[in-house]
Amino acid sequence: MDYKKIDDKDIEFLVSVLDKERVFTGERIHNDFSHDELGKISKMPDVVVEVLTTNEVSKIMKYAYDHRIPVVARGSGTGLVGACVAIYGGIMINMSKMNKILELDEDNLALTVEPGVLLMEISKFVEEHDLFYPPDPGEKSATIAGNINTNAGGMRAVKYGVTRDYIRGLEIVLPDGKIIEVGGKVVKNSSGYSIKDLICGSEGTLGIVTKAILKLIPLPKKVISLLIPFTNLDMAINTVQKIVKSKVVPTAIEFMQREVILAAEEYLGKKFPDNSSDAYLLLTFDGNSTQEIENSYEKVADICLEEGALDVFITDTEERKEAVWSARGAFLEAVKASTTDMDECDVVVPRNKVAEFIKYTDELQKQFHVRIRSFGHAGDGNLHVYILKDDLTKTAWEEKLSKVFEAMYSKSRELKGLVSGEHGIGFAKKHYLLEQYGSDYLELMKNIKLSIDTKNILNPGKVCQ
Amino acid sequence: MDYKKIDDKDIEFLVSVLDKERVFTGERIHNDFSHDELGKISKMPDVVVEVLTTNEVSKIMKYAYDHRIPVVARGSGTGLVGACVAIYGGIMINMSKMNKILELDEDNLALTVEPGVLLMEISKFVEEHDLFYPPDPGEKSATIAGNINTNAGGMRAVKYGVTRDYIRGLEIVLPDGKIIEVGGKVVKNSSGYSIKDLICGSEGTLGIVTKAILKLIPLPKKVISLLIPFTNLDMAINTVQKIVKSKVVPTAIEFMQREVILAAEEYLGKKFPDNSSDAYLLLTFDGNSTQEIENSYEKVADICLEEGALDVFITDTEERKEAVWSARGAFLEAVKASTTDMDECDVVVPRNKVAEFIKYTDELQKQFHVRIRSFGHAGDGNLHVYILKDDLTKTAWEEKLSKVFEAMYSKSRELKGLVSGEHGIGFAKKHYLLEQYGSDYLELMKNIKLSIDTKNILNPGKVCQ
Repeated sequence: MDYKKIDDKDIEFLVSVLDKERVFTGERIHNDFSHDELGKISKMPDVVVEVLTTNEVSKIMKYAYDHRIPVVARGSGTGLVGACVAIYGGIMINMSKMNKILELDEDNLALTVEPGVLLMEISKFVEEHDLFYPPDPGEKSATIAGNINTNAGGMRAVKYGVTRDYIRGLEIVLPDGKIIEVGGKVVKNSSGYSIKDLICGSEGTLGIVTKAILKLIPLPKKVISLLIPFTNLDMAINTVQKIVKSKVVPTAIEFMQREVILAAEEYLGKKFPDNSSDAYLLLTFDGNSTQEIENSYEKVADICLEEGALDVFITDTEERKEAVWSARGAFLEAVKASTTDMDECDVVVPRNKVAEFIKYTDELQKQFHVRIRSFGHAGDGNLHVYILKDDLTKTAWEEKLSKVFEAMYSKSRELKGLVSGEHGIGFAKKHYLLEQYGSDYLELMKNIKLSIDTKNILNPGKVCQ
Repeated sequence: MDYKKIDDKDIEFLVSVLDKERVFTGERIHNDFSHDELGKISKMPDVVVEVLTTNEVSKIMKYAYDHRIPVVARGSGTGLVGACVAIYGGIMINMSKMNKILELDEDNLALTVEPGVLLMEISKFVEEHDLFYPPDPGEKSATIAGNINTNAGGMRAVKYGVTRDYIRGLEIVLPDGKIIEVGGKVVKNSSGYSIKDLICGSEGTLGIVTKAILKLIPLPKKVISLLIPFTNLDMAINTVQKIVKSKVVPTAIEFMQREVILAAEEYLGKKFPDNSSDAYLLLTFDGNSTQEIENSYEKVADICLEEGALDVFITDTEERKEAVWSARGAFLEAVKASTTDMDECDVVVPRNKVAEFIKYTDELQKQFHVRIRSFGHAGDGNLHVYILKDDLTKTAWEEKLSKVFEAMYSKSRELKGLVSGEHGIGFAKKHYLLEQYGSDYLELMKNIKLSIDTKNILNPGKVCQ
């Protein structure tokens, strides 16, 4: 693409808007800004700028638009598909210092935040006020704008839905620098096309989120988790189906295997409450009355035992909860630390196809002699499957990776699944999005992209391009 | 706009696709097809066709696209803003015979339906299977595709959200006749721009919904309603604020006034359980345990009594429930029957601004000597305010209407509300959408429209055009 190359005059302009300390070039750019969490896609931006206000973002975008300079906005960089990598160089806007919680409106159960506020800060803040922001992706150091841009899901989607469902309003800087507000503190909205929902999940390609109004709900008074061991994963996952059909709604249903638990124990240097079985389900229930929760979890415990569960551990003490959930939160890091390199498949399949998909990844493991680890959201069909490099050469691994990915995404399509449940497409998964949707559908997305970003300067080369 | 006028060759083509009995021209077109429920916007289409399959819709759109003929898809025609009126003539596709429930998938809690299935049919069908489709707009004879296209909200939005939150997947015929599937039975989705959410609320301007996959949840085991009389509306609505802040979450919080109840009694020929007070709140609570529901409603009843409620009627018998909810369901028809003509304002304001807005409509009633009636969703800030013509002349009424509307929408903007909570923009509210958003934002919507509908043939002249 034909973009203007950054020169001294551009840097001069950026310094005039931000001052010198917030404009980084050359060796002053930290290497972190060249990649995201998974690190496979890598490219240095020409300049990194640190913004503090919406107006600064707007001025930079207007300038970039006038001069046709590519721009990428970046939060914590915890993505896994290269969405925040400046593959065409240009300006990287570091949004992470726009990190204030602006207002808690208890009358309207709404929280207004800047884009760089971290997920862990939001949950802590609102829970202190007896309120609840339900989306709960594993990566708590992601920014809220990062979560909005991937429409992150997390563990509680079974009962509460995903990030999209908790975004009431957004302030957005458009690719040409214009600032618009979409939605608001209102609960319903049928006032024109939902730009809010178009931005949500667009991975920084359509606009830059500079403010968000989040929907809160009252904090459930009681939460309890069950850790349930099974002889094998097949039995565990088949049981999920029975739970969904029983019409009990747990808050979360996670599955995990012994190998991943052992990796987490090693990584954290902490013991998991039990590691003697091959496979586990981890379920959470929440509600406002003990009776309500007990009814639910007793019914589910009975179902699990009928289906062959070896035991049912109730994790109702703070200590046990911490042991279980800190391990669950560390799975990605633990698997990563257990190998030399890895890549991830984040498909989502209909819930009754989870067992079939996981069984298939087991077959692929044997067929390709490559180590595959998985864990994820059994209750909502969103799986995180990791293909590990171990001692394979780079070439051998990349070859296997490509074949294993082809096989997995093709299986997902066969099961009427989709390419990504919550991590997005970014740069790394574009090929599989095309295979999923075909060129007509991709063309539709491209046309939407260009109708909003006419000069194609905002995070170009991502998602559908 | 420069559209091709329908001629004999076009009719010939339509007959070749559908056969003669399903192609209507001239006097064979029923007058209903010239307007929607409110009837203010009126225009006859040149031809009405009745489709039965997605392929028929696709063939018609491809032909219309090739020949640049405007097309409007229509369901039950229960809209209130002229969205389904063929203001440029052309082809009207009557979708109401594509009305089959295709599949109930209890494993994935998903219902697949054709676009013409009525809301009342969906709730009846799923409840027989102990499942629940929560969106509950007052107009039960609307089609599901109509609900999707306005992102209808309804009474249960307080607890359960709106139509958008229950759409898992759609089959869509694009303006050029291509067929795409978006979403699916999956619970999460971060696979490219959410075309599903763009279509939802787009009022038939971006694509024609030919199939929908709906999210279901288990049917709550217990439901109870409270009817709570107050001395005046102010006291009733101020109490809603206290309820929201108490962190109890009712399923619905409706407000109603004596005059509207009397109109409903007259319209239905049935008595409401109580009509002695000036204002009422109607609250619903649902859940799976008696303890849970009792805790909630007792807390709310106490709040209401503290705030000056005159009594608390528990409507726990089938007979009482029917009396209350059938009246609530008939409010719109009853108000309509009580006057010669009317028009509606469907603003949504932050929940803590409802009292202020309603008070303002009272002032307008006095200031303009025009009868104004309102009811609506106090719990989610979405108000339905009707301005009645009564014995005013057409000219006098239209003049007053325009002034009252200007005042109301301007007040809504001042309170950070939006033009429409659930009835949409269609043709009638375009002016107020522009006033709300300004031309930059409207331009953005227009560009999106034209990026998908390059020849501007699908329901042109609506929403943002």
